[in-house]
Amino acid sequence: MPFFRKKVYACGGYYTISLGTGRKEFHPKKPRPGIEHYIKEAIQGSIDQVQSPEHIDEGVIGNFIASRFCHQGNLGGFFPMAHKTFQYKPCMRVEGACDSGGLALVASVKTILADIAECVLCVGVEVQNSVKAIYGADYLAAAGWYAGERKNGHAYFFPDKFSQRAGACFEKFGFDPFRSGMAQWYTNAIENARKNPKAQEYHNRNTSLYETGLSAPNPKAFCEHINVFDCSKVSDGGAALIFASEEGLKNIGVDKKDAVEVVSYAQVQDNITTAPPDLTKLTTCQIAAQRAYERAGITPQDLSVLDVHDCFTVAGLLAIEAAGLVEYGEVAAFVKEGNTKRDGTIPTNTSGGLIGYGHPTGATGVRQAVDVVHQLSNKAADYQVAIHTDRPYGMISSMGGDDKTVVAMIFRKSD
Amino acid sequence: MPFFRKKVYACGGYYTISLGTGRKEFHPKKPRPGIEHYIKEAIQGSIDQVQSPEHIDEGVIGNFIASRFCHQGNLGGFFPMAHKTFQYKPCMRVEGACDSGGLALVASVKTILADIAECVLCVGVEVQNSVKAIYGADYLAAAGWYAGERKNGHAYFFPDKFSQRAGACFEKFGFDPFRSGMAQWYTNAIENARKNPKAQEYHNRNTSLYETGLSAPNPKAFCEHINVFDCSKVSDGGAALIFASEEGLKNIGVDKKDAVEVVSYAQVQDNITTAPPDLTKLTTCQIAAQRAYERAGITPQDLSVLDVHDCFTVAGLLAIEAAGLVEYGEVAAFVKEGNTKRDGTIPTNTSGGLIGYGHPTGATGVRQAVDVVHQLSNKAADYQVAIHTDRPYGMISSMGGDDKTVVAMIFRKSD
Repeated sequence: MPFFRKKVYACGGYYTISLGTGRKEFHPKKPRPGIEHYIKEAIQGSIDQVQSPEHIDEGVIGNFIASRFCHQGNLGGFFPMAHKTFQYKPCMRVEGACDSGGLALVASVKTILADIAECVLCVGVEVQNSVKAIYGADYLAAAGWYAGERKNGHAYFFPDKFSQRAGACFEKFGFDPFRSGMAQWYTNAIENARKNPKAQEYHNRNTSLYETGLSAPNPKAFCEHINVFDCSKVSDGGAALIFASEEGLKNIGVDKKDAVEVVSYAQVQDNITTAPPDLTKLTTCQIAAQRAYERAGITPQDLSVLDVHDCFTVAGLLAIEAAGLVEYGEVAAFVKEGNTKRDGTIPTNTSGGLIGYGHPTGATGVRQAVDVVHQLSNKAADYQVAIHTDRPYGMISSMGGDDKTVVAMIFRKSD
Repeated sequence: MPFFRKKVYACGGYYTISLGTGRKEFHPKKPRPGIEHYIKEAIQGSIDQVQSPEHIDEGVIGNFIASRFCHQGNLGGFFPMAHKTFQYKPCMRVEGACDSGGLALVASVKTILADIAECVLCVGVEVQNSVKAIYGADYLAAAGWYAGERKNGHAYFFPDKFSQRAGACFEKFGFDPFRSGMAQWYTNAIENARKNPKAQEYHNRNTSLYETGLSAPNPKAFCEHINVFDCSKVSDGGAALIFASEEGLKNIGVDKKDAVEVVSYAQVQDNITTAPPDLTKLTTCQIAAQRAYERAGITPQDLSVLDVHDCFTVAGLLAIEAAGLVEYGEVAAFVKEGNTKRDGTIPTNTSGGLIGYGHPTGATGVRQAVDVVHQLSNKAADYQVAIHTDRPYGMISSMGGDDKTVVAMIFRKSD
């Protein structure tokens, strides 16, 4: 029995630029668009691709923490603003830290499967440049357990978490190979971003990326085992993707060949009050990927494209292992050899990923899905990679907190 | 065709006390339980009522703004903490301001209808006594549009919104009758709360409730048209309710006669960037109720019990009209005549409502559903009211913001 009781499709993917340091439009002292803008642009970009947006039945908005960055909750209330026919239709905000976008995908798919709606507009959004990075790091640390470890934790709470993971990997697998893998990850991310005009690192002209990736950490100013290039940046952005049943596609006037089938997902929640079982593994991500493959009836070798949550280079590496593409302990060499590059065995984060495109947290999971949908429907423009006929699948793995809240979702190219 | 593609049931309802001023356990200077406690107690209280909690497949947590009151996001991460078999199962947090609990109900029902899970544990939670009321009012104002009206709005943003609604009603319907209706609402709320040991006003021994309800407003310290008794209090609390398919009920070992059927709901979203069309009406609540009745194939006269979102007495009155129980402009007299009392034509907010039980914002929608489920399954103990054989339905109407985000849900007593 298939995991889904009926067919679900995705189409009309769109995302905004990821605004922040590195983008030529960005200036820390100049006014920037508010969260309303990103919601509106993402929705508009999406519905411009359909004939009859009035047949969109519901909205979902993934957002992590606009309540702090923008003093704004109840984001569903911006949905009716985007199109006059959305007035008095349902819209729900969902949150799971940096996996908020991933949860928005799941909520959208469930609504279709429930026969409650034939067509759901899924949005992800975050605006984070409204405060200095150190305050932003504190806001984002709400993804960790406040009353437990976070209250007296590192000022850069999550960078420190992944610095500890990097340190554990150095110890377990040897400094040099693992650190090289991280630098290669950074290099690939920027090289991919240079092919994506929406990417925060699109304008990056550094000619020694790999050497930059190897820069020594500065524990006094930041973290012990990682440098600032190992981190995704502070970003503002929005993304949108339409989910529909077969009926829903007809309603909005989208041909099935312009859509991609959603074949399975897995949403997995680890206990926020406990430490990860092994710092050298993303255990929750691994469980999610395994369940998603099983439910889709495929193996990692059936993927032509992958998009993982590289909030940090070390997270990117461990996510490749968690996705089952390489044995435990071998990912650094796998990446160093170029397997995750655009012409490698499994092109990964082809639009730049969180390090290259940017990480507007609540938008990220949706942005990942948009990119995989674009790849599978040959709409990825300059960052398009080869989708093999015998490997018609693409997967995203979206993560919140330190491997706590995870969504893996698998898409299939139309025949 | 019924609105739901398969039967959905609710059972195992539980909520904590609403902690805050008025409760004998409450002392502003003494330590209080954290948000973890309320999630855990609510879940425990719920799963204690089923034989096999290990067959609960998913969790949903409604919460408005723990990111500010508790520095805590990613609340789904507390779900696995509550029972060892919940580890690595999905849990999603949803938010729609004070309707967060209502959205949690909807997300749970959809998951069952989607055939993704047979049994979902729905939780609502909020802890608000962590800061002074004036700061809390600022946090809660995130339900309004920050970049628009809220930025320079009243310090007590939402009390002021509903004070304006009260002022508009005084002008339209005459001060005396409407003000009397508000005082009667307050009186009923406290009288009902005195029958509910979990209510924040359970210990209230005031013998002149109606006169207290009529107290003159103090615009210098608070608002122009309402007094502090017209407002729900600052509350900490949690609530939980299990949703299941027929299969799900069997899985967890609950007899159908101990469950209540969910027959329809309507989730309606108004544009947060626009002013309400008419201050003397809850237009969005009205649309939600109409749609919920239509989808259930019933009329307001089929209800034996009702639970509405009386964040303020004026909101309670207008919600009765919005629920279609009385013509426009007649609600003050309707309430004054006792129609919403426990022995009235439509017993409303039988456990105290937001004014009497308390208003732990993210928990409220779930608490409302628990109370209606308790009433329809004869489990409401001291606050049980008569459920008429020919009127086997109960409805909740849950609201976020100033009539912006609304869920109405209709339940039916088992045969």
